[in-house]
Amino acid sequence: MSHANPGLKPLLSMVLDEGVFTLRRAHWEDLPAILRLLAADQLGSSRENAEDVGPYLQAFQQINEDPAQLLVVGHLNGTCVATFQLSFIPGLARKGSLRCQIEAVRVAAELRDQGVGAAMMQWAIEEARRRGCTLVQLTSDKSRKDAHRFYERLGFVASHEGMKLAL
Amino acid sequence: MSHANPGLKPLLSMVLDEGVFTLRRAHWEDLPAILRLLAADQLGSSRENAEDVGPYLQAFQQINEDPAQLLVVGHLNGTCVATFQLSFIPGLARKGSLRCQIEAVRVAAELRDQGVGAAMMQWAIEEARRRGCTLVQLTSDKSRKDAHRFYERLGFVASHEGMKLAL
Repeated sequence: MSHANPGLKPLLSMVLDEGVFTLRRAHWEDLPAILRLLAADQLGSSRENAEDVGPYLQAFQQINEDPAQLLVVGHLNGTCVATFQLSFIPGLARKGSLRCQIEAVRVAAELRDQGVGAAMMQWAIEEARRRGCTLVQLTSDKSRKDAHRFYERLGFVASHEGMKLAL
Repeated sequence: MSHANPGLKPLLSMVLDEGVFTLRRAHWEDLPAILRLLAADQLGSSRENAEDVGPYLQAFQQINEDPAQLLVVGHLNGTCVATFQLSFIPGLARKGSLRCQIEAVRVAAELRDQGVGAAMMQWAIEEARRRGCTLVQLTSDKSRKDAHRFYERLGFVASHEGMKLAL
């Protein structure tokens, strides 16, 4: 009996100097690697604890069960080296537009500046288009100047203040 | 037979000089009034067409059927004078935090500076807390300086660039 798992199908494959880079939907077994990526980040290091997956399990299940959420991982030669999450948010504004929000974009430090991040975000933008979104949005900490230039090269405009209130 | 509609229960009531202001979940019959509020906005006027509800109907249904979306209207003496939408987004970052995103906040011009907006947003922040969120976030066009001061008074910090890409 064969149970094809659509989650196993790569969303994107690209050849890098180091090997084949693939994007696919995240599975349970990717969780520790995703948490290491979140914790390795300069701003995330104080917020995350990759040694204890407990608090993350419920969130992972919620994301996986919600068709409006898409958590993606990038693998290079079998190792998880990148991740991002897309949320598809219905709204009345802009004539009832669906908007795509990008959160938690991370690429392992050793893979930076090799086009991986750009390929991931271009795939995300195309996925938003396929789902009928008319807007893609994200917020990026004001200290991440490199990230802003990266997103501007992809066509994003820093038109808004991103305001946060921690509870 | 009585079918109590929980959507009819006010979420908040407050007494203003002009009468009683109430917040409740939006119903179908509020749609034209919400669209007028979106279209009356300085930036929304070119984006919306309140005369034709067609394109908005599907979005309204999607919002209403999704437990992660909450579209709210504010009424003063039976007239819809305010609206906002909350989206509850699961994520792995910040130890599996649920975050609350606020979109499409509008208050009728004649009701500005009377505490209506602040009361609405304070209710939204409390609702986010009740649902277990650890973060409330929104983006606000950089031209809306008054709005930024308003949100800062509520405790929001403009820590992020809000980046948008229209498709």
